[in-house]
Amino acid sequence: MAILNEHYLKLQGSYLFAEIATRVTNYKHEHPDAKIIRLGIGDVTKPLAPAIITSLHTAVEEMGKAETFRGYGPDQGYEFLINKIIEHDYTIRGVQLEPDEIFVSDGSKSDVGNIQEIFGPDNIVAITDPVYPVYLDTNVMAGRAGAYQDGRYTNIVYLPCHAENGFVPELPTQKVDMIYLCVPNNPTGTTLSKVELKKWVDYAKKHGSIILFDAAYESYIQDPDIPHSIYEIEGAKDVAIEFRSFSKTAGFTGTRCAYTVVPKTVMAYTTGGEAYPLHQLWNRRQSTKFNGVPYIIQRGAEAVYSPAGQQQIKETIKYYMTNAKIIREGLQSIGLQVFGGVNAPYIWLKTPHSMDSWAFFDKLLNEINVVGTPGSGFGPTGAGYFRLTAFGSRENTELAVERIKTKLHI
Amino acid sequence: MAILNEHYLKLQGSYLFAEIATRVTNYKHEHPDAKIIRLGIGDVTKPLAPAIITSLHTAVEEMGKAETFRGYGPDQGYEFLINKIIEHDYTIRGVQLEPDEIFVSDGSKSDVGNIQEIFGPDNIVAITDPVYPVYLDTNVMAGRAGAYQDGRYTNIVYLPCHAENGFVPELPTQKVDMIYLCVPNNPTGTTLSKVELKKWVDYAKKHGSIILFDAAYESYIQDPDIPHSIYEIEGAKDVAIEFRSFSKTAGFTGTRCAYTVVPKTVMAYTTGGEAYPLHQLWNRRQSTKFNGVPYIIQRGAEAVYSPAGQQQIKETIKYYMTNAKIIREGLQSIGLQVFGGVNAPYIWLKTPHSMDSWAFFDKLLNEINVVGTPGSGFGPTGAGYFRLTAFGSRENTELAVERIKTKLHI
Repeated sequence: MAILNEHYLKLQGSYLFAEIATRVTNYKHEHPDAKIIRLGIGDVTKPLAPAIITSLHTAVEEMGKAETFRGYGPDQGYEFLINKIIEHDYTIRGVQLEPDEIFVSDGSKSDVGNIQEIFGPDNIVAITDPVYPVYLDTNVMAGRAGAYQDGRYTNIVYLPCHAENGFVPELPTQKVDMIYLCVPNNPTGTTLSKVELKKWVDYAKKHGSIILFDAAYESYIQDPDIPHSIYEIEGAKDVAIEFRSFSKTAGFTGTRCAYTVVPKTVMAYTTGGEAYPLHQLWNRRQSTKFNGVPYIIQRGAEAVYSPAGQQQIKETIKYYMTNAKIIREGLQSIGLQVFGGVNAPYIWLKTPHSMDSWAFFDKLLNEINVVGTPGSGFGPTGAGYFRLTAFGSRENTELAVERIKTKLHI
Repeated sequence: MAILNEHYLKLQGSYLFAEIATRVTNYKHEHPDAKIIRLGIGDVTKPLAPAIITSLHTAVEEMGKAETFRGYGPDQGYEFLINKIIEHDYTIRGVQLEPDEIFVSDGSKSDVGNIQEIFGPDNIVAITDPVYPVYLDTNVMAGRAGAYQDGRYTNIVYLPCHAENGFVPELPTQKVDMIYLCVPNNPTGTTLSKVELKKWVDYAKKHGSIILFDAAYESYIQDPDIPHSIYEIEGAKDVAIEFRSFSKTAGFTGTRCAYTVVPKTVMAYTTGGEAYPLHQLWNRRQSTKFNGVPYIIQRGAEAVYSPAGQQQIKETIKYYMTNAKIIREGLQSIGLQVFGGVNAPYIWLKTPHSMDSWAFFDKLLNEINVVGTPGSGFGPTGAGYFRLTAFGSRENTELAVERIKTKLHI
């Protein structure tokens, strides 16, 4: 008799965004004429840059001709893309990486979800709270989370991030083995300084822990003092795996390309204490369970690094960051306490009068037809907070802010 | 201290095709002028069909315009593709499926590799021998395989397939929970009749087992009596998950699109005996660790089902199957014992004088510069066999057969 993976049964409810979709659908059903503005899910709205489109067309053309057709590519990505990644994202910041330390993939969600497979079942996992749900859920599925009690899993170490500590997680008092950090942060839109990141690298080196560093939003950093890569921190190449994505950098949410950096110097241990490079395990994992990103898409990603591509994606990022400013300043003007939106496309606000996150969600939806994301959906410490994203159109962003300023009863 | 997944250390050596690549590279280094013909790895050589290219261009164009740009798509695939899949691959064969029983993915290698995650650690796994290595390796990584002793893993049930039993696996004498079947078979190129498949479905129903049915090569079936889907067998919708791919059907090895069918009626059990639909678990797995196939690529896959697309891919399949015939008849003409190549693009031959598979590999490479795949690389029962593929160009295929017929000393 086939037995299922019983850890799946410990997962809580449906996925946050499914619940939001249900509430919005119900509202629309009752109010078919409502002009709803969605600033909830973190999906981009601007089209792919012209340089990327041109490159995609050329690659499609190549796939139609015998001389230039490409079958299976290198499992971990084409050199033409990997070399551009190293040059533009790392060498320029003084970080040296070898081509085979870069693993091109179909998305950071896949990689941050799959990475835990190369670790043993008994590692202690630390996550910030609030957090991108994938880090937690994939560890629940793998059996590392323990039981769910009073809103938390018993074996997970939660690192609370709130207004009172400036959204800077404190080092855990107990020993942890796998540490997920997302900088700039989803959902809070806040960042960590080099000094703060150095504390985590030192902690990991001291305890033999691994930092799983999600830098999906690094291209939104405006402040020159905030690091874009954890490898800008001394010692990080011994303890950190970094995840990068073209989704938010270049509008690839529906085009699917990302990459993960696993330096050969990052070690994990057998229970007997023998050290092995995690690079070797991740390489085997990807070679066995993944067959690479479409050639066409990798050519599209390569074009992100062309001079025209760089200029075009920077214009789009500027556009979204202007949206962020409009939201941030609009909310502040009516006295709301607002975080993020300066080095990240997310605005994280404290609900007025410490209102419950879902109650505030319903209030925004019902009173002014604006959809955001309840902070409590990202973890217990997110309760009383709310997330808005800067990825909408300018028109919708301005309209939403205008409605919040003039029509919302708070 | 982060502990690694120690099951990875039980994996045997490097991946088969990596060893082949090394031997070929070494030979080329010593013989730079050799004209090597590769009939080893199962990669296609013909370009994408014109109907697919047109559709890809249109989709690229859409991604460049704000009005038609697509961000995150539905996790499990766009309806436009799923509806075509159901209509052309199932309804036509009398199989009824609901749209949300189809999960579009980036490749069957990913899906057959990831599917074991939704099962508990103590299920007994059965694989045919020889076998596509991914079924085995992913279960080794998950800890279901046990120790490696004398060329076999102690907890895996091997189902030997050889000339003596006509490559028809016998039902296991012990109880097994997860059964991997690949029909038409990679590597042997043989198939199973409806009567044979029915035995497996009945076995699975009786024992509460799940059949993981890899039908990646179904479009190469020529014989009208051979089933294309396991769901053509009565009762299979209660016990089988089916994997399909555009890789070999439409030359998508470098374009990446596939799908997996999980009927809602397929149940697995908790250790307490409670039944759950595996559909629910796979849906959660994919929603949490995967973000869908690129919109552009899904439009390309949709075009496979257009009248022009259907005609064009059938021509390509016919081309490869003519190659298969040339190889099969050529080898038979010099007295070699040959299997497959009639309903599949693989030719499986018995090495002359029961020669060791790798010795025959070296002989072909050294004497006539032809690269194939040693049967022993697919499992212990593959020893003394050898695989050739029909995916080369006509010219290379004819040249390779000519060399085998006239220059090989056997």
